[in-house]
Amino acid sequence: MDYTTGFSLPRDVLLDRAHSEALLANRWFFVGTRGDLPRPGDMFGFDLFDENVMLIHGHDGRVRGFENRCLHQSARLLDDPTGSCGRRLVCPNHQWSYDPSSGELRGATGMPRAFVDDPADGFTGLRAVAVEERSGLLFACLGEPDASDLDRLDDVIRPYTDPFHLDRGGYRVALHERETVDANWLLVMINNRECVHCRANHPGLCELFDPSSFNGAVTPAYTARFDDAAARWEAAGLAWREQAFDPHDAVRVARYPMSEGHASITFDGRPACRRTIGPWTEHDASTLSIWLNPNAWIHYTSDHIATNWVIPLDAGRCVLATTWLVHEDAVEGVDYDIDHLAEVWRVTNAEDVGLCRSMTAGSRSRHYRPGPFGEDERWCVQFCDWVMANL
Amino acid sequence: MDYTTGFSLPRDVLLDRAHSEALLANRWFFVGTRGDLPRPGDMFGFDLFDENVMLIHGHDGRVRGFENRCLHQSARLLDDPTGSCGRRLVCPNHQWSYDPSSGELRGATGMPRAFVDDPADGFTGLRAVAVEERSGLLFACLGEPDASDLDRLDDVIRPYTDPFHLDRGGYRVALHERETVDANWLLVMINNRECVHCRANHPGLCELFDPSSFNGAVTPAYTARFDDAAARWEAAGLAWREQAFDPHDAVRVARYPMSEGHASITFDGRPACRRTIGPWTEHDASTLSIWLNPNAWIHYTSDHIATNWVIPLDAGRCVLATTWLVHEDAVEGVDYDIDHLAEVWRVTNAEDVGLCRSMTAGSRSRHYRPGPFGEDERWCVQFCDWVMANL
Amino acid sequence: MDYTTGFSLPRDVLLDRAHSEALLANRWFFVGTRGDLPRPGDMFGFDLFDENVMLIHGHDGRVRGFENRCLHQSARLLDDPTGSCGRRLVCPNHQWSYDPSSGELRGATGMPRAFVDDPADGFTGLRAVAVEERSGLLFACLGEPDASDLDRLDDVIRPYTDPFHLDRGGYRVALHERETVDANWLLVMINNRECVHCRANHPGLCELFDPSSFNGAVTPAYTARFDDAAARWEAAGLAWREQAFDPHDAVRVARYPMSEGHASITFDGRPACRRTIGPWTEHDASTLSIWLNPNAWIHYTSDHIATNWVIPLDAGRCVLATTWLVHEDAVEGVDYDIDHLAEVWRVTNAEDVGLCRSMTAGSRSRHYRPGPFGEDERWCVQFCDWVMANL
Repeated sequence: MDYTTGFSLPRDVLLDRAHSEALLANRWFFVGTRGDLPRPGDMFGFDLFDENVMLIHGHDGRVRGFENRCLHQSARLLDDPTGSCGRRLVCPNHQWSYDPSSGELRGATGMPRAFVDDPADGFTGLRAVAVEERSGLLFACLGEPDASDLDRLDDVIRPYTDPFHLDRGGYRVALHERETVDANWLLVMINNRECVHCRANHPGLCELFDPSSFNGAVTPAYTARFDDAAARWEAAGLAWREQAFDPHDAVRVARYPMSEGHASITFDGRPACRRTIGPWTEHDASTLSIWLNPNAWIHYTSDHIATNWVIPLDAGRCVLATTWLVHEDAVEGVDYDIDHLAEVWRVTNAEDVGLCRSMTAGSRSRHYRPGPFGEDERWCVQFCDWVMANL
Repeated sequence: MDYTTGFSLPRDVLLDRAHSEALLANRWFFVGTRGDLPRPGDMFGFDLFDENVMLIHGHDGRVRGFENRCLHQSARLLDDPTGSCGRRLVCPNHQWSYDPSSGELRGATGMPRAFVDDPADGFTGLRAVAVEERSGLLFACLGEPDASDLDRLDDVIRPYTDPFHLDRGGYRVALHERETVDANWLLVMINNRECVHCRANHPGLCELFDPSSFNGAVTPAYTARFDDAAARWEAAGLAWREQAFDPHDAVRVARYPMSEGHASITFDGRPACRRTIGPWTEHDASTLSIWLNPNAWIHYTSDHIATNWVIPLDAGRCVLATTWLVHEDAVEGVDYDIDHLAEVWRVTNAEDVGLCRSMTAGSRSRHYRPGPFGEDERWCVQFCDWVMANL
Repeated sequence: MDYTTGFSLPRDVLLDRAHSEALLANRWFFVGTRGDLPRPGDMFGFDLFDENVMLIHGHDGRVRGFENRCLHQSARLLDDPTGSCGRRLVCPNHQWSYDPSSGELRGATGMPRAFVDDPADGFTGLRAVAVEERSGLLFACLGEPDASDLDRLDDVIRPYTDPFHLDRGGYRVALHERETVDANWLLVMINNRECVHCRANHPGLCELFDPSSFNGAVTPAYTARFDDAAARWEAAGLAWREQAFDPHDAVRVARYPMSEGHASITFDGRPACRRTIGPWTEHDASTLSIWLNPNAWIHYTSDHIATNWVIPLDAGRCVLATTWLVHEDAVEGVDYDIDHLAEVWRVTNAEDVGLCRSMTAGSRSRHYRPGPFGEDERWCVQFCDWVMANL
């Protein structure tokens, strides 16, 4: 493929889904957090091309992945995005049952006892899908990649994420939303990797964050605000120096100050949730943000965590999933209002979706030609380089 | 194809529509009853992949099939599922006209008289589609199969169906419904061929019928109820012994008693229609049920007949058609209420559609593997064997 | 391909979009009028298969075409069907900017100055799409056809269109509507080229126009009405003799009298707009109609101009676009009511869309066979001959 670094992805990488399938078969991708399925027996499913995968929080505390397909007649064991089971995971069709921790077949309605006790090849249990957890973040892979890649990622992020102890619980899902988007998932990611489009397209978000900060070309006023925030972060014992992608890395970590008068990522500046989380005992006008290749971005504030991830259904259609996590003791209607909590990313994501649809339409033109990235789109270059290196 | 009897169908039989096209080109399939088009001139159309077929009740009393496509500019002669014509079938586009009994071209607007009187090859009339009637049931085939197959089928069912005299009229359509379903039609049929899923998925239906009866593993209470019913059937002179599929047969016939207090297939047990039909002068808590390969199932009660059939549009989409027939003199609002009459199959079919969508999604997985059928899914095994033998 | 003149198009010409792509790459097609974008900076976009083209009224007064795709990240510069820009056409994504008259790149956010001042190959500006104007009508072509074809067309129509001076302005868009239709675009055109279907399918339109007039088989009453109208046209100095397609021509021009008591193309016969246009100082019960190959038909009355055109999205789906133009000084709600103005073509087009869907469904049948055209469908024969000659 004719790829030049500094330019966007070749048309066939965008339009031919085999490339995306290869990328997701070889590399770990983000599929949520422990907060999405906090209790043993909790389940969380997602489509990926023609496959459907479910994550299960095992009774031993570990989160595993399985193909969401009963061995009997291929029905979905989990029909909704989320659910919960007890000690047995039972298929709604004919009640075949499985151990939710191991995926092993435990009951097969109508089959001789030996079918379960002495199973034939391919009928011992659900097909496993590789899932690993690091810092409370969950990663899946359809193939069998090297888990040490995730150790390296965790080495980078753990100093930042550990004070939020997502891996040790304490959170509940305030809201989980999924939108099917008529856009190529790689273009959704490229859009996410720059903020040059922000000033014209995200007027609300730009009230909260100075877009130039994202791009690196900062104003003296912003520098002053950043230095103030850094002093607070230091005082709180929080790591705060940006760790950016290098050509081999799949992660960027940064902390950003919010505009004055903002207690959280809300348009009105009021707290998104009355209860603070992790290291924070008071609301703080800042965010810890993590961008992960190939498909996610996460914002930790002092009162909630918002995870965003993208997963392709085909070359021109993907799902954008967002979870808002709050303190496990926070009470809806008392400590937070869902629409107030969710407003900024709902609005901002909708604005981005419009741009991503537009870029996707443009990529279908016979005359499409990968366009160049500017200086402030350096993370787009990193993303495209990373994609091309990992196809 | 890698097929093992006792297991479900191979993935490519499900996903590659050429197999389904071959099956329906070689074998008769159910397409309704004489009750769907009771009067001369009545028409009844259906889609099948990219074809559209119309049945016409000819003025000689015979039901025939034609491709629903005008010879002039290929418009549909019958645009709705059902309609009626007089002595001429007229295309709504330019009023070309045909003899509804023979399909012969009778008028061709704007063409010289010789075009009709001395037609060229291919312009003598509508393309015929083979349609045969047995016991009032209508069967079509896109190819030219052996009609003696239907004689053999009729030999089996006529002792049961003759008292309902569907072939000799006396019925009217209370309701005809069609639903386009995002599911593979063969999986809809497999779902129909077992009732192991019933207890968990059809709570309403299980109040009417003991699902174990369907499966063969009966309780003493059920046996007692069956014996009572059999005595009534005997007294009424009705054949009642089950005739099941053998590997070569396309049909199963059985009578089932309903739960006490049920006069018909209604959730509340009240009659579905005040007027009884066929051999019945009083309502009877039983049903005569017929399952036909490859695509239908029919329930005759003492006050109505419900026909259900499935027809593919493509590999992942099909139409489920249901007709409720009542006595020709029954009056809506007086003798029956449509929602009350239709409720059980509307609810039950919707429950099944959910399962069929789920199995269809599972069959798209690259890791799909045909699953085994248990003892109580013997009719699924018969269905799959029959499909594989007739592709 | 097996084509016989006098019969409709072969199935693969209809179903295989490569043929339509070839036709539209080699020949000019109608894409609106100067009235659709009357002021400098006005823009007008349309989809064509996977391409999106925008027309821009340049500040030099000329209308040009460009691919609607930013050189940067392929977003659409114009996201709505219509819009307007000033001296700079700015991409909504990252504000890259272009000269709306030349398409030249003028600003490239984040790129070095040399990128714009000394652009590399392929980055000088937007990709041009050939657009030509004749008599105020706009034609585009994806390839590079001979503009002299349009001169020849203009030689035919100018004597008729010049009194309406559409090329010199004076009009405003009262309404522009687009409908995505599940029909093959060539079948939409064939339907447009005959009126044999009118009497049964357009009862409203037939109150305004005698359909036999279109077909050539006129009644004495119609001849008398035509002669009256011709006398008025003569008196007004208007060309009125029909100029019909010959095998090489892409155009037909005709004037038709409307039924008595009709001041314009309205069901109630009242004027569509109080202000008259072009040569007319009083309302006149007649129309000037122009049919253009491959994709348009236009009706000029004494108070408005209605343009209709069709453009394919794929083999089975197209867009039908209609613009109603009125005098530039006409005021909505005072001089015209939009629903009253638009009613006849809204109703008539909807009636045609049903027939076109029906013919499209029929063309998908494996047994489709091009049907013969009758004497009164001579313009269909001309259209099919022209298509086959220009593939």
